[in-house]
Amino acid sequence: MSAYTELLAHERQTQALAQVMGRLGWDQETMMPRGAAGQRAEEMGALEGVLHARRTDPRIGDWLSAAEPPDAGGRATLRHIRRSYARHTRVPAALAEELARVTSTAQGIWAEARARDDTAHFLPWLERVVRLRREEASALAAGGDLYDALLDDYEPGATAATIGAMFDRMRPRLVDLRAALLAAPNPPARLKGEFPREAQLRLARLLAETFGYDFTRGRLDLAVHPFSSGSGADVRITTRIDESDPFNCLYSTIHEVGHAAYEQNIDPAHALTPLGEGVSMGVHESQSRIFENQLGRSRAFTGWLFARLQTEFGDMGLDGPDAFFATVNRVSPGFIRTEADEVQYNLHIMLRFDLERALIAGDLAVADLEAAWNDRFMADFGVAVPRPSQGLLQDVHWSIGLFGYFPTYSLGNVYAGCLMQALRRDRPALDDELAAGDLSGATGWLRDAVQVHGGLMTPADTIARACGFTPHEGPLLDYLDDKFRALYGV
Amino acid sequence: MSAYTELLAHERQTQALAQVMGRLGWDQETMMPRGAAGQRAEEMGALEGVLHARRTDPRIGDWLSAAEPPDAGGRATLRHIRRSYARHTRVPAALAEELARVTSTAQGIWAEARARDDTAHFLPWLERVVRLRREEASALAAGGDLYDALLDDYEPGATAATIGAMFDRMRPRLVDLRAALLAAPNPPARLKGEFPREAQLRLARLLAETFGYDFTRGRLDLAVHPFSSGSGADVRITTRIDESDPFNCLYSTIHEVGHAAYEQNIDPAHALTPLGEGVSMGVHESQSRIFENQLGRSRAFTGWLFARLQTEFGDMGLDGPDAFFATVNRVSPGFIRTEADEVQYNLHIMLRFDLERALIAGDLAVADLEAAWNDRFMADFGVAVPRPSQGLLQDVHWSIGLFGYFPTYSLGNVYAGCLMQALRRDRPALDDELAAGDLSGATGWLRDAVQVHGGLMTPADTIARACGFTPHEGPLLDYLDDKFRALYGV
Repeated sequence: MSAYTELLAHERQTQALAQVMGRLGWDQETMMPRGAAGQRAEEMGALEGVLHARRTDPRIGDWLSAAEPPDAGGRATLRHIRRSYARHTRVPAALAEELARVTSTAQGIWAEARARDDTAHFLPWLERVVRLRREEASALAAGGDLYDALLDDYEPGATAATIGAMFDRMRPRLVDLRAALLAAPNPPARLKGEFPREAQLRLARLLAETFGYDFTRGRLDLAVHPFSSGSGADVRITTRIDESDPFNCLYSTIHEVGHAAYEQNIDPAHALTPLGEGVSMGVHESQSRIFENQLGRSRAFTGWLFARLQTEFGDMGLDGPDAFFATVNRVSPGFIRTEADEVQYNLHIMLRFDLERALIAGDLAVADLEAAWNDRFMADFGVAVPRPSQGLLQDVHWSIGLFGYFPTYSLGNVYAGCLMQALRRDRPALDDELAAGDLSGATGWLRDAVQVHGGLMTPADTIARACGFTPHEGPLLDYLDDKFRALYGV
Repeated sequence: MSAYTELLAHERQTQALAQVMGRLGWDQETMMPRGAAGQRAEEMGALEGVLHARRTDPRIGDWLSAAEPPDAGGRATLRHIRRSYARHTRVPAALAEELARVTSTAQGIWAEARARDDTAHFLPWLERVVRLRREEASALAAGGDLYDALLDDYEPGATAATIGAMFDRMRPRLVDLRAALLAAPNPPARLKGEFPREAQLRLARLLAETFGYDFTRGRLDLAVHPFSSGSGADVRITTRIDESDPFNCLYSTIHEVGHAAYEQNIDPAHALTPLGEGVSMGVHESQSRIFENQLGRSRAFTGWLFARLQTEFGDMGLDGPDAFFATVNRVSPGFIRTEADEVQYNLHIMLRFDLERALIAGDLAVADLEAAWNDRFMADFGVAVPRPSQGLLQDVHWSIGLFGYFPTYSLGNVYAGCLMQALRRDRPALDDELAAGDLSGATGWLRDAVQVHGGLMTPADTIARACGFTPHEGPLLDYLDDKFRALYGV
């Protein structure tokens, strides 16, 4: 057997075990009995130890030196393995295991703290998570920037400096747009009516199928914080139900289907190889965002959706599809990132980006985090956070150690803006298709332009090749200005 | 660190990973999308490879030589590890991985074959499973009996010869009793009525709680073939619904709760050690059987249960609790082992025991298995098997390689007979408790006498110590004669 073949066989088993790890995470969020949390932490710690040992196996170094890739896919595969090997050999196994154990417990603690609005219950665990992640970042950065070392895990090639600069360019136009919209007279109505759980779930399944989710290789369940999980032939999605607001469930579903479609549509030849999963969190998020926003919240598609909702829920206190489109895109003050509209969403991210940079840099203590959050929220959004579950405790991310992850959401929005411009260019009849509830043209374009490639190219190249131009924030900002100024008449 | 401490730390991680493997099996039967079967087989194969490597790690041999156990628990722990190490070092890793992969696929094929009554679809896979298990048995037996080598995995210390001899002693009395009951005039009525799914699930949850199942450390789902899965803090059970027959769901649930209570009630100090799971399949089955039959089908308890069922289902065409007791214990011709009454159940096992001994010995070809099954069924039960799903395809066991497992069900019945005799001796007021739906006395006795010990003693010692006498088939046969002859007046 050649070094390349041996390396790929080793990698394939590692990928299979990584899928198992993902399934444990899914189970923990959807199925696991509460009393099992302690044992689960030990199980995940043990599996993390196995994965770490496999990813740092010294034979990988030997194989990498000797391997001769057969083609471009082989070269990309080696690039991923080389990168993973370098990263993992820098992190001591004991640290990796402790991180898995502590974050597994911290996530349960976070859920309890959020349910009872008890920040003090969570902070000691967050402190441990921050300490361990800083330790890991030190090992990875080798003298470089700690935050960049973490960010690189989610978005290879990105840096806090370039993202910070991008945010600086985005902020003025978003702040202006937000102010204009919130000051506009006659804001869109809110939905009225009853939105029973079963009907929401029925619609969620319909939407998942409409956007191309393959239920023979996945399933839909409920979770506190919706997510998509798994690659290849087993890609599961979750949503949540708020009986006073069906958009929460329905647009979460479309969003997660965007993530899941990416994983389900990667060339099956890449399954269980480093090319067999989404290439970065930013590109991943571009798929969920374009599904949810540019397509799912378009005037054309919401016309079709309105008719489906009418069947289940009556007229919901709305005049017709134009009013529904306005309501779907309502811009109003709010505390929760996952419920934020397209205009304000990136402002929520900028808040988190700055706070987590300061935490990781050591410029902000965990004990001061809640005050910092609340002050910044007041400064950016002009309202006081009423309770921790609407502030610091709203997101699962930090409890499981995801620092450097939040900015990839905004990167996803920016990429989605670019992709939508290219999609409209390539499919002039797009709005007619969307108005008929036919998403196959749009999702097929995304599948062929982006998804099928998996990890074959770098993140930025993946988007650039799909669009035919270098990605930048311009198309997103133009899209937001055009859509929302027209809708609000400002 | 002492050799003993190092060995236990190694073992603890292995046990944690074995729990993960169990959870994958649970997921496959309850949650997994159909299209994920191929990938899941690869995932389980990879994890099996990890487990096999850990269980055959040469350091275990060194640690075992040097380890000094601190107490009786430590000595029992070393006994288990020594046994596991010997068994696993005899089986090549490639064979263990292939078995995991093939049985994972074969199980999916079996489910399809059973659903469409298509034996030919399943047999090529069964042939592979038999071939691989025979290969494994050869490696384990080191010249000894192949079947004994497999049986020893489920029931340490048992042999086909002793079980065969026990069956020879049991058969005449069971055959006589069966003939007398089936010839009796006025057999008990069948249930009549409607038994909606939701009501059955409600009752299943009530019964699980009544028999002491801890839902904070487990959950109840649906599966084609009910099972219990996991140890320690995460012990899950499944049941199935037949809307024409609530007993299927309810008594499956009580049965699986017996298994689960055993795992949930083991001394938490043994968690994730070799003492932290049921000591053998026979002892396991003794717990599920005494829950289901000696307690769950007793006149006293069925009186309480009748009132609960009346609330959901009306009078079900029955006169009162005596008629209900008779119906619960109705003896009639039937094809399905899991639905068999207490009298005929062991005859179903004897059929499988003889066929699987012949398969493993090489005296029976897989191609001839269906004919052999049908002939034997006609000989033992006097009726022709109408279709494969009521014959050869009814059980999941062989598809996942469980040869040598079936006789442990009968061993469980025999042990349950012994335990019930001891329980009645120790709790004279038992029937009053059962009649009030209070199972806590009985389940508490079983917890303290059997379950809490986990793997501390050998299987036979576990039962002997709980009962105060050496276990034998006499108490079970006496119990069956007494109960059924009185009920049928024969």
